[in-house]
Amino acid sequence: MKQLNIGIVGAGRIGNVHAQSITYHIPQAKVLRVTDVKVEAAKALAEKYGIPAWSADYMDIINDPEIDAVLVCSPTPTHADIAIAAMQAGKHVFCEKPVDLTIEKILKTQQVAEETGRKLQIGFNRRFDHNHGKVQRLAREGKLGNIELIKITSRDPEPPSPEYAASSGGLYIDMMIHDFDMAMFLAGCDVTEVYAMGTSLVDKRIGEAGDVDTAIVTLTFENGALGVIDNSRRAAYGYDQRVEAFGSLGMAAGENDGDSTVRLSTAEGVLSDKPQFFFLERYMASFIEEMRQFIDAVQNDTEVPVGIHAGLMSVVLAKAAKKSLDEHRPVKISEIL
Amino acid sequence: MKQLNIGIVGAGRIGNVHAQSITYHIPQAKVLRVTDVKVEAAKALAEKYGIPAWSADYMDIINDPEIDAVLVCSPTPTHADIAIAAMQAGKHVFCEKPVDLTIEKILKTQQVAEETGRKLQIGFNRRFDHNHGKVQRLAREGKLGNIELIKITSRDPEPPSPEYAASSGGLYIDMMIHDFDMAMFLAGCDVTEVYAMGTSLVDKRIGEAGDVDTAIVTLTFENGALGVIDNSRRAAYGYDQRVEAFGSLGMAAGENDGDSTVRLSTAEGVLSDKPQFFFLERYMASFIEEMRQFIDAVQNDTEVPVGIHAGLMSVVLAKAAKKSLDEHRPVKISEIL
Amino acid sequence: MKQLNIGIVGAGRIGNVHAQSITYHIPQAKVLRVTDVKVEAAKALAEKYGIPAWSADYMDIINDPEIDAVLVCSPTPTHADIAIAAMQAGKHVFCEKPVDLTIEKILKTQQVAEETGRKLQIGFNRRFDHNHGKVQRLAREGKLGNIELIKITSRDPEPPSPEYAASSGGLYIDMMIHDFDMAMFLAGCDVTEVYAMGTSLVDKRIGEAGDVDTAIVTLTFENGALGVIDNSRRAAYGYDQRVEAFGSLGMAAGENDGDSTVRLSTAEGVLSDKPQFFFLERYMASFIEEMRQFIDAVQNDTEVPVGIHAGLMSVVLAKAAKKSLDEHRPVKISEIL
Amino acid sequence: MKQLNIGIVGAGRIGNVHAQSITYHIPQAKVLRVTDVKVEAAKALAEKYGIPAWSADYMDIINDPEIDAVLVCSPTPTHADIAIAAMQAGKHVFCEKPVDLTIEKILKTQQVAEETGRKLQIGFNRRFDHNHGKVQRLAREGKLGNIELIKITSRDPEPPSPEYAASSGGLYIDMMIHDFDMAMFLAGCDVTEVYAMGTSLVDKRIGEAGDVDTAIVTLTFENGALGVIDNSRRAAYGYDQRVEAFGSLGMAAGENDGDSTVRLSTAEGVLSDKPQFFFLERYMASFIEEMRQFIDAVQNDTEVPVGIHAGLMSVVLAKAAKKSLDEHRPVKISEIL
Repeated sequence: MKQLNIGIVGAGRIGNVHAQSITYHIPQAKVLRVTDVKVEAAKALAEKYGIPAWSADYMDIINDPEIDAVLVCSPTPTHADIAIAAMQAGKHVFCEKPVDLTIEKILKTQQVAEETGRKLQIGFNRRFDHNHGKVQRLAREGKLGNIELIKITSRDPEPPSPEYAASSGGLYIDMMIHDFDMAMFLAGCDVTEVYAMGTSLVDKRIGEAGDVDTAIVTLTFENGALGVIDNSRRAAYGYDQRVEAFGSLGMAAGENDGDSTVRLSTAEGVLSDKPQFFFLERYMASFIEEMRQFIDAVQNDTEVPVGIHAGLMSVVLAKAAKKSLDEHRPVKISEIL
Repeated sequence: MKQLNIGIVGAGRIGNVHAQSITYHIPQAKVLRVTDVKVEAAKALAEKYGIPAWSADYMDIINDPEIDAVLVCSPTPTHADIAIAAMQAGKHVFCEKPVDLTIEKILKTQQVAEETGRKLQIGFNRRFDHNHGKVQRLAREGKLGNIELIKITSRDPEPPSPEYAASSGGLYIDMMIHDFDMAMFLAGCDVTEVYAMGTSLVDKRIGEAGDVDTAIVTLTFENGALGVIDNSRRAAYGYDQRVEAFGSLGMAAGENDGDSTVRLSTAEGVLSDKPQFFFLERYMASFIEEMRQFIDAVQNDTEVPVGIHAGLMSVVLAKAAKKSLDEHRPVKISEIL
Repeated sequence: MKQLNIGIVGAGRIGNVHAQSITYHIPQAKVLRVTDVKVEAAKALAEKYGIPAWSADYMDIINDPEIDAVLVCSPTPTHADIAIAAMQAGKHVFCEKPVDLTIEKILKTQQVAEETGRKLQIGFNRRFDHNHGKVQRLAREGKLGNIELIKITSRDPEPPSPEYAASSGGLYIDMMIHDFDMAMFLAGCDVTEVYAMGTSLVDKRIGEAGDVDTAIVTLTFENGALGVIDNSRRAAYGYDQRVEAFGSLGMAAGENDGDSTVRLSTAEGVLSDKPQFFFLERYMASFIEEMRQFIDAVQNDTEVPVGIHAGLMSVVLAKAAKKSLDEHRPVKISEIL
Repeated sequence: MKQLNIGIVGAGRIGNVHAQSITYHIPQAKVLRVTDVKVEAAKALAEKYGIPAWSADYMDIINDPEIDAVLVCSPTPTHADIAIAAMQAGKHVFCEKPVDLTIEKILKTQQVAEETGRKLQIGFNRRFDHNHGKVQRLAREGKLGNIELIKITSRDPEPPSPEYAASSGGLYIDMMIHDFDMAMFLAGCDVTEVYAMGTSLVDKRIGEAGDVDTAIVTLTFENGALGVIDNSRRAAYGYDQRVEAFGSLGMAAGENDGDSTVRLSTAEGVLSDKPQFFFLERYMASFIEEMRQFIDAVQNDTEVPVGIHAGLMSVVLAKAAKKSLDEHRPVKISEIL
């Protein structure tokens, strides 16, 4: 099979993750160029992974006829424009989430993907997690019967700075977006209504900046099932990532991963490992797997595992949640989209 | 210490539970009489536990000067009247939940308790559970820091008949009332607002009878914490009873109890015990403990561990939840009480 | 069914346990008399459980025509003589372990049981434990295929005094005797050879007294399976009681019981409960169950669940282990019996 | 830091594992050549990992002045000769286990390592496992107090062919050698005596070929602690790899790793993942880590983490175990070495 040539736009943390996945785990692909407006970041990433070219302008990737696919890892406001330009130049696109903060641009991106027939995968890596993915497979295989309840807990180990919280678009779109996607992934259908609670208990400066750091959002799914997500920006014991699906035949639920299975039993009690610290530790295998599946889909011309609909609905739910919080009432998805 | 003499009103399932607890586990108390409008049920219970007297009329207990305390285990609509009559006759009262389906009668019961100075304990046995009780103790001891999130899962193994569901007052007051009390017990304060979702996924006849069998209710606590309860009338794997308290310093969470800790590892996987089947198996020790503490409180003239405020607030929350479901909006507790 | 009348010889710890089981959990039996050479101990036990008679001389039980069955809970050297006298007087016998420290007396006891046709049950309560018993049932039901390996861990929370260790007959007969019986119970057959290691690491005075406090004994079973038992007189984290059976189709293994299933997750890690402290907490349900089954066997004239063969073989194995340790070589059971 | 150039002798399964580790996980090293007497295997491995040169003769590696270190992954009987030749040519050596089947050659290899001052690391990868390694660290940090008992369970998912068993040198040297090393690693000292039991329960043809497939070996350590290892060539539920260290202050014990933490609760029970299938899945991270530490030790001129003493003692214990089995008695290490 012909090697797939890749360009990476954005040399930040997630750009590094994907460069590492491709370099060390996906022999059938090769990164030819990385770009970043901070050109020294592009250079550092390129040197770290032996990528032959780097520059500041993402058009260097889009104009390169050798490059087959583009990974859009730049700041959110630039995602849609770059993805659209890349697809219009004939390239397949892997786009980080959220696709955009506006519904309009996401729909435009969707339209270009349909017109050009290019692959467009959205970076919801948690779908590829060994735990969450297994819960979903058990649900899809019918082991749980009809799905009736979905529960997701997602708590970060440490809060961001209040400045970050203020500029991030808020918890629902910055953090819970992953959980919105996971909820629909597990339920196997879209959400029709949300009710959002949110408050600032972790760092009052986050509240002063207009955001929440502790939140519970309930969901109604198209198939009649109910769901609930809880988020906190700070868990003293580490990154808490658990999902549960409950149906007429039973329940599938995952526990956190620790660094080991060892238990230390002493006069104080039985001590086990905390959850792995944060997403780079916890989800590294899922980042590799989403990239592997993206490259497979391009090379074999099959459907991408996470399409633009997921990118759209997750943002729609985040907006509905924010509206629900602001107006203190349940909000139907049809009010947003 | 002088033996405490007890009368039991109501020879149904819970009357039997308390008779058994006192007979076999609390040597310092003795049941002198049991009454039930179905006198043969009273007789059967009396014979089973060696109780010397039985009859149909609960006034036989209230008028018996030998009896120090009355356990009110009759149908809900009679709870308040019997409790009030007993206290006015100078007896201490242990009253099953819900105290009454009306706020007015609960407040009246509260008033009589205050006027007579009699002990009045409400039967929220789950507070005495080894798992839930430990979560609460860790919270009260400060091990979790400031409480920020409370999560409760409570699912019955099998649904009741649609007839029962229709006559029970509905899931929120019949089933979730335990969880409302547990939530406030764990948070250490009252709830100020609820938002209720509910649907009928387990047995559509329950829905046709005007009730729900699958529900999620979110809570806002006085201290600013958030909470969520999920209920189902049917869990294929048994009685699912888990609570979780999350705070600034960490989380305490209980798992279900199985009949053994044995794991069977075969080519099919690693198989563990299901949760214990239902409340008689799962909560028997808590029934004994609540009765022991009631008798201790009477004998030592100390405060009962679960007072009438708990009885009141649990019903208030159930009513607020029903109103929230009906009006499809969050409901403040101040709208009810 | 006619009530079974019982006499208890020995008002020590285990006599109390059985009195409690019968009084509170087995309505079809009643303790009529307890005796102890320390008559005040007999009196205290009798008063605690409402037993109508007590005295110093066990012949008061044996000569009482009202008494159907005798529980032999006196010091080990008196077990066999009392059991024999009781059976010869027509009474059924429940005898604590070890039956005797000599093979001869155990064989004599066996002979009297056969001659008189009286029930004779030996007090290996751990067979009735919810965890160990489940492992055995899975083995007997064929879920594990052919049994190939048996592993038993048994560690006490705190060491006995060196004086006790010296007078107890040593670890193999005082402590590991339970594990020898459990091993044969799980394997479903007798042992043919043992190899014993033992040392004094916990308290060197135990070693100076001629005993060991840390031991590993390997076993060869009649069916060709292999086994291993490890014992320690002190586990800092509590009473460690785990068994594992491994066969051609899989493994069944039990974990310790804690007082709750709650896990406390903090920055220090995830803390669970220690094993329950000691045998009164851990094995109380099994003491009740062995007594219930003894009384059932007497009342229904069925076979007792733990016969004298178990009493014999456990002592034989203990003697073989001691010989193995002394002679530093594997010892065949045929050298002992 | 200068890149470390590596030659791999032997293109079998373990040669592939190390080539993969270096290529994908250790940027500071590079494999320059792989050799195998089956040259097509060398070629296949080279092409798979982009290794520039391959050939049949390991002298091509030893004579290549560009190569700094040699990985000896050839059949056991050739290990010592190749390791010696490589060290004498000035190269550092990573040698798979067992170093040799004779004590003499291992001692000779040790002598050459000392004379040449070259690094010589032995391939006991399990020391680098996240679970076993953590147990050892807790022991070394003093969290367990004085070590008193070591327990190791090691069971393969499927038996080898009887032919393999016959030619492998037998279970003790082929399979239990890892556990002998692990035992001494956990105890922190050497073993002074072993007693071996072994039988053929899995496949009688293994017994007919003169080997055992089910074994228990007990150990006495220099520090007075006791130990036990159990092995089976077949576990229906997968690769069972558990270690436990017990001391005066407590116990550290690891559980198996499954592919996920998900539990499926249904009417049949609660089903968890089996242990990961076999050593490539279970121990891949440890293979990477041992190689990383070898390369670090060479580049920084520090001590290798697993020296020749471990290679020697593991073979000595295997020989002692075989002698113990044959002579049916405990065997002192001083009888072997």
